[in-house]
Amino acid sequence: MLTIQDAIDRVLTAAAVPPIPETVDTVKIGDPTRPLTGVVTTFLATSAVIARAAELGANLIITHEPTFYNHPDTTDWLQDDAVYQAKCRLIDSHGIVIWRFHDYWHRTRPDGIITGVLTQLGWEQDPLEHHPSIASITPTSLAALAVYLKQQLGATTVRVAGPDSMICRRIGMLVGASGGKSHIMTLGRDDVDAIICGEINEWETSEYVRDALFFGRTKGLIIVGHANSEEDGMAYLSTWLRPHVPGITITHVAAGDPLRVL
Amino acid sequence: MLTIQDAIDRVLTAAAVPPIPETVDTVKIGDPTRPLTGVVTTFLATSAVIARAAELGANLIITHEPTFYNHPDTTDWLQDDAVYQAKCRLIDSHGIVIWRFHDYWHRTRPDGIITGVLTQLGWEQDPLEHHPSIASITPTSLAALAVYLKQQLGATTVRVAGPDSMICRRIGMLVGASGGKSHIMTLGRDDVDAIICGEINEWETSEYVRDALFFGRTKGLIIVGHANSEEDGMAYLSTWLRPHVPGITITHVAAGDPLRVL
Repeated sequence: MLTIQDAIDRVLTAAAVPPIPETVDTVKIGDPTRPLTGVVTTFLATSAVIARAAELGANLIITHEPTFYNHPDTTDWLQDDAVYQAKCRLIDSHGIVIWRFHDYWHRTRPDGIITGVLTQLGWEQDPLEHHPSIASITPTSLAALAVYLKQQLGATTVRVAGPDSMICRRIGMLVGASGGKSHIMTLGRDDVDAIICGEINEWETSEYVRDALFFGRTKGLIIVGHANSEEDGMAYLSTWLRPHVPGITITHVAAGDPLRVL
Repeated sequence: MLTIQDAIDRVLTAAAVPPIPETVDTVKIGDPTRPLTGVVTTFLATSAVIARAAELGANLIITHEPTFYNHPDTTDWLQDDAVYQAKCRLIDSHGIVIWRFHDYWHRTRPDGIITGVLTQLGWEQDPLEHHPSIASITPTSLAALAVYLKQQLGATTVRVAGPDSMICRRIGMLVGASGGKSHIMTLGRDDVDAIICGEINEWETSEYVRDALFFGRTKGLIIVGHANSEEDGMAYLSTWLRPHVPGITITHVAAGDPLRVL
């Protein structure tokens, strides 16, 4: 009988990434010595995702992002919070374990998140461009590219800087929240037209693009939302994982976009 | 003859904030020993704002946010960047000094940014609620509140979580990017219905709200954009500053929203 910890170990063995000393990829809650009944993959283990996992009879949720609203999942500051308490009760009542698979999935070669997103977009990564991943695409205007990303990634809206009509050929795939420095150093390259981000800090990337445009350096920025930018990478995990835990049902449950536009 | 440094000193004297040992409120570029010719206040010294300051004959720009795309305005990583180089040349060619007024303006009592934003909204801060600032408003639905904020703050769009029809009475004024912990601890209070943010991290605040709604704790989140959330606080500075530098022309130049929605 496979335990939850066995399944986690198999994922890590298959990822074949050298050990990362400081990692957020830990069990966040629950008892991983229990027998594994099923797996759910998701961008983020929202309470709705947890309830759906329980309905599916799965007791291991593999999440890309935190469970408790901060990167290292510290919970000392949440002890008196009613939402935190209710979420813990929900998880506990179904005997669910939540394990984060973030650092190791990104460092899998090729990066598991990027692989899933590129597949969804029908794009390919340039073979020599890993840090960051760069995709060469059919020349497309920034506005058309934004609309395509909306459709393919299931975003209700995208935020954009740069002229609608600029032609984009080489795209930096900076999904998630990789930070202003990584965004800006990619945009600063002469061979990159635009970047796709999950989210930014608005005193960083967007301001660099605004200044670049002022000086006639035509650069594009498309912000699709963090969840929209990485969900396909966790959907891909559900396929990738299958041969490593035969006989176990694996379901991807999308967290969805937490925000809407008014 | 007043120097630029004299003007900076007068601002700090008028703010009357105890010294902050580690502060980003420093001169970022330029020679502050020069005679002051005029002042521009802004949310962020974009290249367009700098060019406008030069047109106005002002050689001191007081900015709330960084000049060089990162919070401490480090520039070692930007030395070879064409946009950074062009921005420095633009500033230098007009003999302009850029000084940041962020930490001290927020710690002025009352907080200068919050004062400007509340005035623009026609709201008042509850007298005992400083950390964070809380405003009691005429009961308003979340959707109507979002539309009002769009109009009053000049945002082309706002991002929202929470039911359109929920009634908001007590609002946490978390302008700028105060961080997930501050957002969440404010939303966790029973006496706060909704918060207004400049920006968030999408693995923090928006996920807390999503879980809160799942458990029937009705909370609202309205994200107006960082620039939109604080620009009125820097417009207010241009008025507040006037008596402290008599005879000097002070102009507020809005940086504007760096992003649009597609």
